[in-house]
Amino acid sequence: MVTPPSLFRTSLFAVLMIVVSSCVPSRNTESADILTIQRQGSMLVGGTVKTSPGRFDPIAHGAFDPANASTAGQTLHGDHAFVFYQVPVNPRPLPLVFWHGYGQSMKTWQTTPDGREGFQTLFLRRRYPVYLLDQPGRGLAGRTTRPGSYAAATDDQRWFGIFRLGEGTTFYPGVQFSQAPVALDQFYRQMTPDTGPLDIDVNVAAVSALFDTIGPAVLVTHSHSGGQGWLAVLRNDNIRAIASFEPGSNFVFPEGEVPESIDYVGGRLNARGVPMDTFRRLTEIPIVIYYGDYIPDEPVENPGQDQWRAAVIMARRWAETVNRHGGDVTLIRLPELGLHGNTHFPMSDLNNTAVARLLADWLAEKNLD
Amino acid sequence: MVTPPSLFRTSLFAVLMIVVSSCVPSRNTESADILTIQRQGSMLVGGTVKTSPGRFDPIAHGAFDPANASTAGQTLHGDHAFVFYQVPVNPRPLPLVFWHGYGQSMKTWQTTPDGREGFQTLFLRRRYPVYLLDQPGRGLAGRTTRPGSYAAATDDQRWFGIFRLGEGTTFYPGVQFSQAPVALDQFYRQMTPDTGPLDIDVNVAAVSALFDTIGPAVLVTHSHSGGQGWLAVLRNDNIRAIASFEPGSNFVFPEGEVPESIDYVGGRLNARGVPMDTFRRLTEIPIVIYYGDYIPDEPVENPGQDQWRAAVIMARRWAETVNRHGGDVTLIRLPELGLHGNTHFPMSDLNNTAVARLLADWLAEKNLD
Repeated sequence: MVTPPSLFRTSLFAVLMIVVSSCVPSRNTESADILTIQRQGSMLVGGTVKTSPGRFDPIAHGAFDPANASTAGQTLHGDHAFVFYQVPVNPRPLPLVFWHGYGQSMKTWQTTPDGREGFQTLFLRRRYPVYLLDQPGRGLAGRTTRPGSYAAATDDQRWFGIFRLGEGTTFYPGVQFSQAPVALDQFYRQMTPDTGPLDIDVNVAAVSALFDTIGPAVLVTHSHSGGQGWLAVLRNDNIRAIASFEPGSNFVFPEGEVPESIDYVGGRLNARGVPMDTFRRLTEIPIVIYYGDYIPDEPVENPGQDQWRAAVIMARRWAETVNRHGGDVTLIRLPELGLHGNTHFPMSDLNNTAVARLLADWLAEKNLD
Repeated sequence: MVTPPSLFRTSLFAVLMIVVSSCVPSRNTESADILTIQRQGSMLVGGTVKTSPGRFDPIAHGAFDPANASTAGQTLHGDHAFVFYQVPVNPRPLPLVFWHGYGQSMKTWQTTPDGREGFQTLFLRRRYPVYLLDQPGRGLAGRTTRPGSYAAATDDQRWFGIFRLGEGTTFYPGVQFSQAPVALDQFYRQMTPDTGPLDIDVNVAAVSALFDTIGPAVLVTHSHSGGQGWLAVLRNDNIRAIASFEPGSNFVFPEGEVPESIDYVGGRLNARGVPMDTFRRLTEIPIVIYYGDYIPDEPVENPGQDQWRAAVIMARRWAETVNRHGGDVTLIRLPELGLHGNTHFPMSDLNNTAVARLLADWLAEKNLD
């Protein structure tokens, strides 16, 4: 390909060229290729143990008999995270650890709602060891140490809006989501409730325990795990980089530099302050943040859009703050790179191979591959 | 190996020789071999949709704002099962579908508590397409249509007994469970609660939907899914065989031939009756049932053992009944084949490769491979 050298004067153009090449339909050979796995498995990581006083009598209280149950002298192991991992043949040195968002699970990174490969398999094909998390109280890490309840409330359409597929029950024009009814059915069903109170400190502790176990790796977060990811970095040096898809809350600033809250329709986005010595850790690793489409720059009445307007504003302030203190945060709005129609789930949208390529290129650029 | 031909006069001895050869420590090459996966992924199967009357207003009620929540006009997709599948290169024709037991999830078939390969990977190595289920309300299939609660009760030691690792907190002598503390820690943490009421009919419908989707396959059940498996066979012709590890309840007999209930310490095991026309379906497929060790033949005071005494008695009656009507049920007590020390979880016990080999041999014997 012959390209005038002048086109490469701005890095923006260089990035655009990468995106354009990413948008070429992926060769069928990609999905037809055989996955070669060196090892795979699952484990529970972190967690606590709750103990009831007294003595357990296995004869008197050992039966599965609700009428005669006793907790005396027994323990409950809970508050752990669950991880399923796969290590390909000839792996790259740094694994990718994928952490889901609110109401979601490791499913976020598996097969897309319309049945294509998700980031789990796409990045295995790119020779990354891949770890998929369920945070404490979610999915396969359901056993927590505090009681919880599930309301079974009808709320699919609210999530349709917050996850930016559209407004009400109408898809946004050009949205990167299959219009086949089965895709929306799968999307709704992949939500899964908490079994106990959602506790950020518990979650961060468990995810940190994973990095203690596996060593240096890159953390990939989504939505609610974005802010939890910043907190995890503060306590674990094995997190060598973060790629964050649509972080929504818990942005961490140095005390004295915490920006004002941002009001949006139906809520308020607050920032967190930590001592400067703690904050500096966030300046030591490369970080990239991605936001999709349908996020307005000015306030709108639709809460499903307006909360993400607030998130982008806060993320921009945060990126500026971290970078001002010597950090390396890149904030990318996918439409600015020519990727249009992305929902809150770029990792499973119809153009997710292009999004994966963007992430892979960033990892290469930062020598994380 | 030279063996007197007379030794092979009884099939029992033939089986014993298979078991003896199974007990040779597995070569390290087995776990060092590369897994070659043709495709893998996950999906939600079956389920229902709950709808609230009224009209959803995305502007008024679209925010994530508990104080202003409204369910009007919204849906809830729930009561589905979750499945993660892997299809190896050069697959055998019939997939294996693995269904967990009470309080468990697909984790049952993944990495063992002491960190070895579980049936998921062992059977992939044997070239079976492998499907791992989470039934409705469990694990990654948490979204159900009815409310539920989780008590976070301390009950680890009760399960230690019911799952036959030992009595109280003391392991049974010779138990096939690692004495390394981390193994028991992992074992306790792999339990995960229900998010809604446990409903056998809902579960069977969702699992049946999976067989509608994937076509003919072999169902492998454990404990509580054993009985659910018999019910699933009654409604789905794609279930071509069942291997059931330690089924505990819901044995299905023809009306008029339902045996008396069996009392055990802390409970009573009832049998179910169905019309003969329905029952006959159970006679049309090969079925094998496995029970482990520490199951007494006479009543004992320890409820963790006594409930399995009742299960074995009922299973034996059931096998006799199905076979009398032309069926093909084999009931195996592992100690009788020389496999000692098995808990309620033979698929993850220390000798699980020998147990896997037994199952593989049965599949071959029944031309299911």
